[in-house]
Amino acid sequence: MGLNFFNRDDRDMRFVLFEWLDMEKVLGYEKFSEFALDDFAMMFDEAYKIARDFIGPTFKDGDEIGVKYEGGQVTVPPSFHEAFKAMAENGWIGLASPPEYGGQGMPAVVSGVINEFFNAAHFAFMTYVGLLVSNSGVIVNYGTDKDKEMFVERMITGEFGGTMCLTEPDAGSDVGDLLTKATPDPDAGDPRIYKIEGSKRFITCGRHDMVDVIIHLVLARIEGAPKGTKGISLFIVPTKWVNEDGSIGEDNDVFCTGIEHKMGIHGSATCSLSFGENGKCRGILLGEPNSGMAKMFQMMNEARIGCGVQANAAAAAAYDAALQYAKERVQGPPFVDRSKPRVPIIQHEDVRRMLMNLKAGTEAARAMIAYNFWMVDVAHNDPDPEVRKAMGMRSELMTPLLKSYITDMGAQLCRDAMQILGGVGYCAEFPIEQHYRDIKILSIWEGTNFIQSLDLVGRKLAMAGGSVYQNFLKEIFDYTAAYKEDPDFAKEFKMLFKAAQATGDISMKYMTYFKEGKIQLIPLSSTRFLDCLAEVTMAYLMLQQGLIARDKLAEAKEGSANHAYYTGKVASVKYFCNNFLPNIFARHTAISQEDTSAIDIPEASF
Amino acid sequence: MGLNFFNRDDRDMRFVLFEWLDMEKVLGYEKFSEFALDDFAMMFDEAYKIARDFIGPTFKDGDEIGVKYEGGQVTVPPSFHEAFKAMAENGWIGLASPPEYGGQGMPAVVSGVINEFFNAAHFAFMTYVGLLVSNSGVIVNYGTDKDKEMFVERMITGEFGGTMCLTEPDAGSDVGDLLTKATPDPDAGDPRIYKIEGSKRFITCGRHDMVDVIIHLVLARIEGAPKGTKGISLFIVPTKWVNEDGSIGEDNDVFCTGIEHKMGIHGSATCSLSFGENGKCRGILLGEPNSGMAKMFQMMNEARIGCGVQANAAAAAAYDAALQYAKERVQGPPFVDRSKPRVPIIQHEDVRRMLMNLKAGTEAARAMIAYNFWMVDVAHNDPDPEVRKAMGMRSELMTPLLKSYITDMGAQLCRDAMQILGGVGYCAEFPIEQHYRDIKILSIWEGTNFIQSLDLVGRKLAMAGGSVYQNFLKEIFDYTAAYKEDPDFAKEFKMLFKAAQATGDISMKYMTYFKEGKIQLIPLSSTRFLDCLAEVTMAYLMLQQGLIARDKLAEAKEGSANHAYYTGKVASVKYFCNNFLPNIFARHTAISQEDTSAIDIPEASF
Repeated sequence: MGLNFFNRDDRDMRFVLFEWLDMEKVLGYEKFSEFALDDFAMMFDEAYKIARDFIGPTFKDGDEIGVKYEGGQVTVPPSFHEAFKAMAENGWIGLASPPEYGGQGMPAVVSGVINEFFNAAHFAFMTYVGLLVSNSGVIVNYGTDKDKEMFVERMITGEFGGTMCLTEPDAGSDVGDLLTKATPDPDAGDPRIYKIEGSKRFITCGRHDMVDVIIHLVLARIEGAPKGTKGISLFIVPTKWVNEDGSIGEDNDVFCTGIEHKMGIHGSATCSLSFGENGKCRGILLGEPNSGMAKMFQMMNEARIGCGVQANAAAAAAYDAALQYAKERVQGPPFVDRSKPRVPIIQHEDVRRMLMNLKAGTEAARAMIAYNFWMVDVAHNDPDPEVRKAMGMRSELMTPLLKSYITDMGAQLCRDAMQILGGVGYCAEFPIEQHYRDIKILSIWEGTNFIQSLDLVGRKLAMAGGSVYQNFLKEIFDYTAAYKEDPDFAKEFKMLFKAAQATGDISMKYMTYFKEGKIQLIPLSSTRFLDCLAEVTMAYLMLQQGLIARDKLAEAKEGSANHAYYTGKVASVKYFCNNFLPNIFARHTAISQEDTSAIDIPEASF
Repeated sequence: MGLNFFNRDDRDMRFVLFEWLDMEKVLGYEKFSEFALDDFAMMFDEAYKIARDFIGPTFKDGDEIGVKYEGGQVTVPPSFHEAFKAMAENGWIGLASPPEYGGQGMPAVVSGVINEFFNAAHFAFMTYVGLLVSNSGVIVNYGTDKDKEMFVERMITGEFGGTMCLTEPDAGSDVGDLLTKATPDPDAGDPRIYKIEGSKRFITCGRHDMVDVIIHLVLARIEGAPKGTKGISLFIVPTKWVNEDGSIGEDNDVFCTGIEHKMGIHGSATCSLSFGENGKCRGILLGEPNSGMAKMFQMMNEARIGCGVQANAAAAAAYDAALQYAKERVQGPPFVDRSKPRVPIIQHEDVRRMLMNLKAGTEAARAMIAYNFWMVDVAHNDPDPEVRKAMGMRSELMTPLLKSYITDMGAQLCRDAMQILGGVGYCAEFPIEQHYRDIKILSIWEGTNFIQSLDLVGRKLAMAGGSVYQNFLKEIFDYTAAYKEDPDFAKEFKMLFKAAQATGDISMKYMTYFKEGKIQLIPLSSTRFLDCLAEVTMAYLMLQQGLIARDKLAEAKEGSANHAYYTGKVASVKYFCNNFLPNIFARHTAISQEDTSAIDIPEASF
């Protein structure tokens, strides 16, 4: 069993759930009426143990033993089997899944925060679990009663595996160009059953030995369907046929033809799959023909939020490791007095700066993630349809921010963590170098970070005539106006105000680019605009937290754990506003230059 | 033999050496009187072949086979032996080393630019070579005639290996706390011979099977010497004793006790060494007692410049790989017209943005590196002592910029290259993921990047009463004033002017911090100040290049390779000024906030 590095501090998660977000509102919904806040607090303790005792050991095993491919089968390390079993048996897979199918029916926000634990222990292991949740969720939403009965509970309880099969060797970011075909199977006696034929690549958890049956959700084009994304349908393709009585039938014609050799996430099998090589692969059409992209987008959206969780979990784990090291490692006298004895490196200013990047960065990301999950709960459960719609759209606006900003920032935070450790941080005896390698996939999969920025500027900014975005900015302006004289955070509110202005100014420029025929300037800078909006959002949420922490600090007993925590929160809020937000002005200046050298340069001049 | 990814474009290197830098001046020096520019051009072609045919194959071998440790010996892959032999036999190791000891006596700037080839092919392999050069250089400068005769030529010709042994398990950044002891050896009959006892860690190339004898340069404290860096001496410690007649004597008491398992540079052996475990390790004092740090600093300085070369070489290799992929990979229609057929991804704006980061970033870094080597040549050879002194000090000012900025930027550029490739970039079938892992060590070793920033603000800014730094800034202000109406680059000169002002303003603030008792704000922001000065320097050099390219472009034939190159250079200059320089304003704003949250926060609040 692998070396266990799991050592998360959960205080900030508890603050988010029990002291900041309006959980009364969520618990007031019919669906959650049986839960009380205390239940969640107890679940935290249990989740911590699962993360530490079962997932923690998979971290090193996954990296060092990794997954093995032989003769079409993929095997995972023994500790993976144990951890998967522990998650399945104790109901942790379906935390937020519907109780009628074996789930626990918890609010998304609770599940989301708890999932940071699990992912901090080892997010590559958690891909096997996370895909089950989102995959089964698609069947719950779009499957027939029979589909649900046949597949959902068996996935949520870990009997079956699950994947999403989009990418092909020649269609990555450009999923609309996929070549996998579906043709009606006249022998099946069921018009929903098709024959599937094609190759998929980069299929996460596409084959493994923790389950006997994997339920692939496969994008394919029904013969004669339109080109592009409009002609894509979604199919349920089990690796073994599941009979109507629930018994497992014959093997389906799906093979794993190999796995990728990757820089990180060695424990997560990245498979190439071949469907229908012998003309015998059967799949069940999920929902209407040609509606596959929209359905897959539900799953994709969850996966994108999931990327934010994974990235922040890895960064938070790196923070914990770096913090522990910084407290223990003694090196060098204080900068202000070189004649003094040497001190633990946590006393050195630059180490503190990097620790604050990690602390403030992960707290801000956690706030944005949890707020998004909270909005999902409201959007799904509020009795008022207007509220549901508004929160749903705001959540959609923020999804690309979570996916893109947090994954890029997370990679930079792992860099800081490694820098704190120095030479040993580059070596395998500490967990940082693995986090550094693992986290990098998150900026690539589930739609590259550039794709996220196109989603933001191309679709999300324009939602409801632009009002979703405009209302959000206005809310921030109102907030900064209300607190501009705040005794503790006036400087930070002022900074946020200016940052929001600069961000709004970029989107205004984008409007004029359409008119002025400069539209190429938009994709040239959209990743930077996304980063601006993400930082504004995070600063806004951090300041909300800062006001609470400031008030509670006044009540807290000096020397108590709470006093230390609230002091730290106030520091995080100030640090974030003063050190992260100024980047927005750099991006604003760069974008304002309207430099077209990257567009103008001929290909031969690169 | 490993897959060979070597595919460097050398056009920009030739521009740097033959069209930009004042090589007439260098060739005018007595020492280089036998060389002509044409010689260097021919050497480029030869160096290219060595890099491609011999070093290229070590890249994958080094990563996948790696170095193996068994029973005190370290073995490297077979392709390493061949490459090392090819470098040694053809005189490539001692390119700039003195001819009287088997070197070729070339200008540092020529050697430096050519070394980018070699390092782009595989910088982890090149550590075995690079250490020989800097190590033997220390003996040339400080050794007795006997020392030189015994060691230097045999190192430069690859018969002996070489290392620098500073770090110990408990003394990393804090080298002054090292514990390795030296005691006079009464039996030796030579007062320069000491017994050495201690442990070193993270010793690059500390043991390997390409040579029989390795010459360790070891920092140790002579018994009774002062504490700290002032009591450290430098010793020549061969792994086998070299007799006065040149024959190889008995084994010295030095053992390799293990190697590190690292995230990257798997081909470069990172060794733990034990000296004098049996009380029989002998070393030769190099120079005066207690003068070791200053001597080691010569080597360290070269190594720091070398880090810049290594980082830029890796980033440039990543650029070449990403560029080739971007030209070949077809995915998605153009942003401006989604109805068109899909195109090679080099036509997509965001890919172009990232390619321009890589192109402009590596060109700017190459300019700064080459300019530094050029200054080294002037500083060592100019007949005018004032010129020698001025250029020497300016080179010293810039050394920390090269080491720190280029290694951090290089890591980010490898990130961009991976992002261009997407999923396959994360996999081992392309070289990017290895560059991504390999390059990260460079921000850590040879003094972490924070140590570089302390060197800059603590020592370099204050050199000659601050005049070295002030004169350099003034030169830039004069330059921007002279070209502020330039028809092509006015916007960029203006940007540089403002950026230099902001940078100057930060150093002015630092002066006031001393008076106001806020000196902790300096180490809190010094890495950011370093980045500002580096970007200003690079923009200054890039604009020099831009003016030349602009003029030559007017003469070049449309459609010619030169036309394409100069067009690309103009684009790089504009891109760099408009997209890199604005970061300076963000740092300036952040620093101006004088936020002390990272200093104020109690340890318990992290």
